[in-house]
Amino acid sequence: MADIVVMRAVSSDNQAHADVVRKILDDNGVFGMNLLSSPGSGKTTLLEKTIRDNPDLKFGVIEGDVFTARDASRIEAAGAPSIQLNTEGACHLTANMIEMVLPKFELKTLDFLVVENIGNLICPAAYSLGVHKRVVLLSTPEGHDKILKYPQAFNTADMILITKTDVADAVGFDMKVVVEDLKAVNPKVEPWLMSSVTGEGYDRWYDWLRSNKK
Amino acid sequence: MADIVVMRAVSSDNQAHADVVRKILDDNGVFGMNLLSSPGSGKTTLLEKTIRDNPDLKFGVIEGDVFTARDASRIEAAGAPSIQLNTEGACHLTANMIEMVLPKFELKTLDFLVVENIGNLICPAAYSLGVHKRVVLLSTPEGHDKILKYPQAFNTADMILITKTDVADAVGFDMKVVVEDLKAVNPKVEPWLMSSVTGEGYDRWYDWLRSNKK
Repeated sequence: MADIVVMRAVSSDNQAHADVVRKILDDNGVFGMNLLSSPGSGKTTLLEKTIRDNPDLKFGVIEGDVFTARDASRIEAAGAPSIQLNTEGACHLTANMIEMVLPKFELKTLDFLVVENIGNLICPAAYSLGVHKRVVLLSTPEGHDKILKYPQAFNTADMILITKTDVADAVGFDMKVVVEDLKAVNPKVEPWLMSSVTGEGYDRWYDWLRSNKK
Repeated sequence: MADIVVMRAVSSDNQAHADVVRKILDDNGVFGMNLLSSPGSGKTTLLEKTIRDNPDLKFGVIEGDVFTARDASRIEAAGAPSIQLNTEGACHLTANMIEMVLPKFELKTLDFLVVENIGNLICPAAYSLGVHKRVVLLSTPEGHDKILKYPQAFNTADMILITKTDVADAVGFDMKVVVEDLKAVNPKVEPWLMSSVTGEGYDRWYDWLRSNKK
């Protein structure tokens, strides 16, 4: 059973805590990522498959949820240490929450620390967590109109993964709209197509992870 | 082109404004609903189809989004008056926002006022808008584990619609988990199955609407 930590306190100086988190990660040679998306976009599935397919890479995962420890249990079953953070109502994680749970990991043994943020495209976008890259997922069933509706999530993304491409046709997802809207919102990021069912995009994702291993 | 209203002010006394909204709706014989779900669960699609299939019922729609007027334009194209509320960052609507835009509708001519809340299962759950019923949507691609992850959205629901049932098998959605979790979270509500592709559940939904027309 994964650890659960309940947190309500929010610091007014998020960036100072983010800087501390970044220094701790760098001092320990750990590459940090903040996974951000709507509920059910496939964040936990992406992590499960990534952990299982790459036993030589060492992941630690902080699972953010309003309630439940289901996701941390899934990550632990996949083979990586995981801490469940429950906000009991708050709609995002903050850097001081990350700073407080970092000592629960043996950081020297990790290659990657992944924070799975609260499922929501609004609040988490405004908070830096001190990690190196922000990875934003958009699943095809959510619809191709979400880039302009939630611009802060997508214009702060270092990487954008379009997930569940296996059902794209069934749900009428038009990738051309996403590409066009991203030209206005975040032209430097080219979205990658991914499916945990067909495996589309995973080799490229794994190559990218390996290129960022410290 | 639909009207857009940008709102940032949030009242500390939400319930007082909710009471005002309720009285205005009741005085005008209008049945109010608050539609709540994750992004892309099908709120706008449900409304478009409902408006088109029932020309004898008169709907007014308040569209809540962080940015863009896309949804209000879709509703207007379907044939109902619509006001777009843009919060420009805030993750939910409040009752005072509803109170402020109500005069933009000819309420005496309406049977239903529908508020499509900001797409998100966390923040909107905590705010009463003064309407008569809260209708919460969960689309099958979001996954069957969302009831316990976002209990406040589901335990405050008067009605729960499981949407996109046409892709339920393709995305591995297990309705039994939803039914079981709802026994703990909101045992009085039986979730209804809906699909705008196959039309599943729509007759029942229309019957329910007609039974609530004042």
